[in-house]
Amino acid sequence: MSFQSFDDPAGGGDHAARLTALRAKMRDQHLAAFIVPRADAHQGEYVADADARLAWLTGFTGSAGFAIVTQDRAAVFIDGRYRVQVRAQIDLRHFTPVPWPETRPSEWLREVLPQGGRVGFDPWLHTRKEISTMEAALAEHSIALIAVETNPVDAVWPDRPAPPVGAARIHDEALAGESAAQKRSRLAAELKAAGQAAAFLSLPDSISWLLNIRGSDLPKNPVVQAFAVLSDNGDLSLFADPAKFDDSLRAHLGNQVSILPPESLSAALTDLEGPVRLDPGSAPEAAFRILEDAGTNVVPGPDPAVLPKARKNAAEMAGMRAAHHRDGLAMVRLLAWLDGQEPAALTEIDVVRHLEDLRREAGILDISFDTIMGAGPNGAIVHYRVTEATNRHLAEGDLLLIDSGGQYADGTTDITRTVALGQARADAIAPFTAVLRGMIALSRARFPKGVAGAHLDALARQFLWAEGMDFDHGTGHGVGAALCVHEGPVRISRVSDMALEAGMILSNEPGYYREGSFGIRIENLVAVTEAEAEPGRRMLGFETLTLCPIDRRLIDLHALSRDERDWIDNYHARVRDALLPDLQGAERDWLTAATAPLT
Amino acid sequence: MSFQSFDDPAGGGDHAARLTALRAKMRDQHLAAFIVPRADAHQGEYVADADARLAWLTGFTGSAGFAIVTQDRAAVFIDGRYRVQVRAQIDLRHFTPVPWPETRPSEWLREVLPQGGRVGFDPWLHTRKEISTMEAALAEHSIALIAVETNPVDAVWPDRPAPPVGAARIHDEALAGESAAQKRSRLAAELKAAGQAAAFLSLPDSISWLLNIRGSDLPKNPVVQAFAVLSDNGDLSLFADPAKFDDSLRAHLGNQVSILPPESLSAALTDLEGPVRLDPGSAPEAAFRILEDAGTNVVPGPDPAVLPKARKNAAEMAGMRAAHHRDGLAMVRLLAWLDGQEPAALTEIDVVRHLEDLRREAGILDISFDTIMGAGPNGAIVHYRVTEATNRHLAEGDLLLIDSGGQYADGTTDITRTVALGQARADAIAPFTAVLRGMIALSRARFPKGVAGAHLDALARQFLWAEGMDFDHGTGHGVGAALCVHEGPVRISRVSDMALEAGMILSNEPGYYREGSFGIRIENLVAVTEAEAEPGRRMLGFETLTLCPIDRRLIDLHALSRDERDWIDNYHARVRDALLPDLQGAERDWLTAATAPLT
Repeated sequence: MSFQSFDDPAGGGDHAARLTALRAKMRDQHLAAFIVPRADAHQGEYVADADARLAWLTGFTGSAGFAIVTQDRAAVFIDGRYRVQVRAQIDLRHFTPVPWPETRPSEWLREVLPQGGRVGFDPWLHTRKEISTMEAALAEHSIALIAVETNPVDAVWPDRPAPPVGAARIHDEALAGESAAQKRSRLAAELKAAGQAAAFLSLPDSISWLLNIRGSDLPKNPVVQAFAVLSDNGDLSLFADPAKFDDSLRAHLGNQVSILPPESLSAALTDLEGPVRLDPGSAPEAAFRILEDAGTNVVPGPDPAVLPKARKNAAEMAGMRAAHHRDGLAMVRLLAWLDGQEPAALTEIDVVRHLEDLRREAGILDISFDTIMGAGPNGAIVHYRVTEATNRHLAEGDLLLIDSGGQYADGTTDITRTVALGQARADAIAPFTAVLRGMIALSRARFPKGVAGAHLDALARQFLWAEGMDFDHGTGHGVGAALCVHEGPVRISRVSDMALEAGMILSNEPGYYREGSFGIRIENLVAVTEAEAEPGRRMLGFETLTLCPIDRRLIDLHALSRDERDWIDNYHARVRDALLPDLQGAERDWLTAATAPLT
Repeated sequence: MSFQSFDDPAGGGDHAARLTALRAKMRDQHLAAFIVPRADAHQGEYVADADARLAWLTGFTGSAGFAIVTQDRAAVFIDGRYRVQVRAQIDLRHFTPVPWPETRPSEWLREVLPQGGRVGFDPWLHTRKEISTMEAALAEHSIALIAVETNPVDAVWPDRPAPPVGAARIHDEALAGESAAQKRSRLAAELKAAGQAAAFLSLPDSISWLLNIRGSDLPKNPVVQAFAVLSDNGDLSLFADPAKFDDSLRAHLGNQVSILPPESLSAALTDLEGPVRLDPGSAPEAAFRILEDAGTNVVPGPDPAVLPKARKNAAEMAGMRAAHHRDGLAMVRLLAWLDGQEPAALTEIDVVRHLEDLRREAGILDISFDTIMGAGPNGAIVHYRVTEATNRHLAEGDLLLIDSGGQYADGTTDITRTVALGQARADAIAPFTAVLRGMIALSRARFPKGVAGAHLDALARQFLWAEGMDFDHGTGHGVGAALCVHEGPVRISRVSDMALEAGMILSNEPGYYREGSFGIRIENLVAVTEAEAEPGRRMLGFETLTLCPIDRRLIDLHALSRDERDWIDNYHARVRDALLPDLQGAERDWLTAATAPLT
């Protein structure tokens, strides 16, 4: 079975009947409205089938959004990425798409419930920050936000799947670079120093990182779905289905870690001694309320694993480099193969399948996200995922945008290359070169400590901006080490003002999209490293991890500075030196040609 | 009399006796501590002699800082710029410098008053934001912040000067581009739309802008010190000494504006109907308390004049361009003259005086700040102001950093040029070129609407960063149109996240400072303009206002890209075309040579 499916994401089911059942249940619960988020209790990018409430109710399968249902309305709030998809997936006779964040849920509620009323929400599925924001916006209206005991969607979902019980596995200490016991005691010491008795963790990647374990509960993200309470003495209670852990796992976790059934979490929180740290940005509102109702001192603060996890150590960095070596070979093999094919004989799905096969040979455990393989105009759809319905034949002269990655035992990859199919189209050369120059400017950047992604974002966009062009997505996101391909807390984006630190790994992926014609994105992963500076200053820079040639057919040499040409030549030399020993025959020849100095 | 004085700023006076008198008064008022800020009630950069409480008490004359006095301690909090100056000015037997913001006043108070106590402050001299921040930091300690009725410093200051009564003048509507009545009704309509009955204004430049008046209460800033209440019908109460306004001024202000004595402000606020908008970042805490005590609905919000004032209209822009034309001529005459002198025959003060004379000929009403004229190592002192004591002879081979500006009737200027005295020193070429490239990158930047100074700052620093270098001041500040040379609300700085808008004028002034050797800064003023963009996008760019050559002796041509050389050549051609018709003889020859294309 392949990791990626090409089915149309629209699920079946009688959504009108489900809506009717939900409304009846809401009447029982005296709720004028109920909020159905896409999120689960762990606020991750992927949710288990048991948590796919939004899709079950509405048919909408996007990765972000929520519905608000009243007795006579059912609004599906979606952001700019999903304006088209939502209309194809929901039954417009029963559901109404609402643009978000342009329309805020509080505004919508005030309009729909002018007399006020009780608005229900499941406190496990929303963070404290979300609920506080909405409460503040509704403060002067007679609308009350009610945390329900029983989620009315679950109550009317007869064949709701069981939560996943994916087997957990040990993440080798050689890859982690630090034992789980050391991590626990390091974080526990921090809690103690802050005068906090415990911290509550709800992010599966934080918990998986902390315990040096990986899981199989969800596709693409190798995490164990769990909650945890870390005490200031290093003891940890792990709330997760015990069936996920075999004897070797239990031995690995050791006797400072207790595995407890998820059903016992509420009682355990009630009994907890404070002060307890919870992250308002990720912990469920329910956890805050249980502690507050028990009179426990709650300290809002960041999940203690988030920053340590983001700062990769030498072993994690070595694993990431090794994974990128194998992943680069798979990509080079794909691009070499592609150049030998007749474009018209291939579809997007054919290329996705071939890439997945090559990555399987390279040892992936999973792909790190569904491959975006956009030929011609499909490349201009930023979050395009090919389905049987949209599958397009490649064509001579088109651009092909390939954004993909793998989950390896030792690392996570995410790479985008945009290649010309045959002769490059003339109108793509200037924007490709502007995107490339931005990617190079960020790659070469050196900057003082304290600088955040918000301050570097313009470096990657400046050459596009100079031509009146831009792109409407972030320039870079954090990446986990054999963890989630989208990892907090820092990004390269105008909204990310947390300082970058040595060891953080980010994507560097400017792009350009011309609707109806082509899409361009060039993406390498980069690691933040210490850099040389004048006495009295401390500077950081980037090391590029990704190893794969950039299509020279699309580069306007005359637009490049000497430094930019040198960067490309040096990068290509590095790619060649790293990968050539592992290639033979035509692949070897292809790489040699693809990485020759620019002339 | 010259606008700039070269006296040592350390004022005389028996500071120990003043401290003793203050402490006695504090005992009468049952205050364990009292805070003496540098600010006056208008939070401006300059304070009148009557408001120079910090200097009177401590001897410290810097433009930022504050003292906290207890019965046995007297701490003077100063930022990084004033670490050296403060030690030269205060009597270290009685006063202790405290580094700020490294040590926060709340921390210091908690340490010095472990048992708690009453800490007094004058609510007219602190903003609501300042007081709220300090109150939050002291919340869990038994320290109470007490707003005093009588400032104990004023009570023990027998010969305290009277407040200034500088004559106001009319700012011509032809220069303002909009009548004062139109401005008042435009802002009043905004208040009405927001459901606010009035706004309280305390910033002299906001009030001067709104009423199309200028003043002479303070040096360098041509504002009228006043408070104002703007009603939602456009009526305005102006609280300022009536002696500042002659009959022509009164006729200009018209019968919708009432001039009231400052003493009547408190009573007028008490009688005000709400809701009233006040700016927590600039309005005095006292104004908030008076309104709140009267039960009036207070709405925190920005001073309604700040953004309209920052967005210069066509007439203001024309005035700024005209002022920069005259100011450019003065600068060119200075630089031409300087190149004809024997450096060793001149001191820094000689050059300051000659520049001021040239600007007087160009028609200034004042300088816009004390000229920074730093020769050799003095150039590396970022906020250097030459005094008789520090005055240095120029020397062949030194760099001379000249940061200066003028207040003209039609505009405000601020320009920095760094020039080589004779042959340029070799070690200055690379940093000068890196600074210049950053200045050019920002000048040439095009960027989408929504981008803020925080996002552009790196463009000006990138070439320095690439060499491990940086500078420790902002890249740019807002500039008023015939108003304050430092004007809010936007800056080019990592901390400025408010979007730039067309019409805003900012400085563009990267630098580099090598302690003990030289300082480099190159500064032009730039105006934000609309720029071309692809369909569906809206972009902005910059127009450079400053007209003065950049010293070609300090430029490493080989480090410049084609675009950068073109920028310099085009800029120099523009300067030459603009100024050459107004020059004769040697000055004409000098400008022709200084603006010739780079080769």
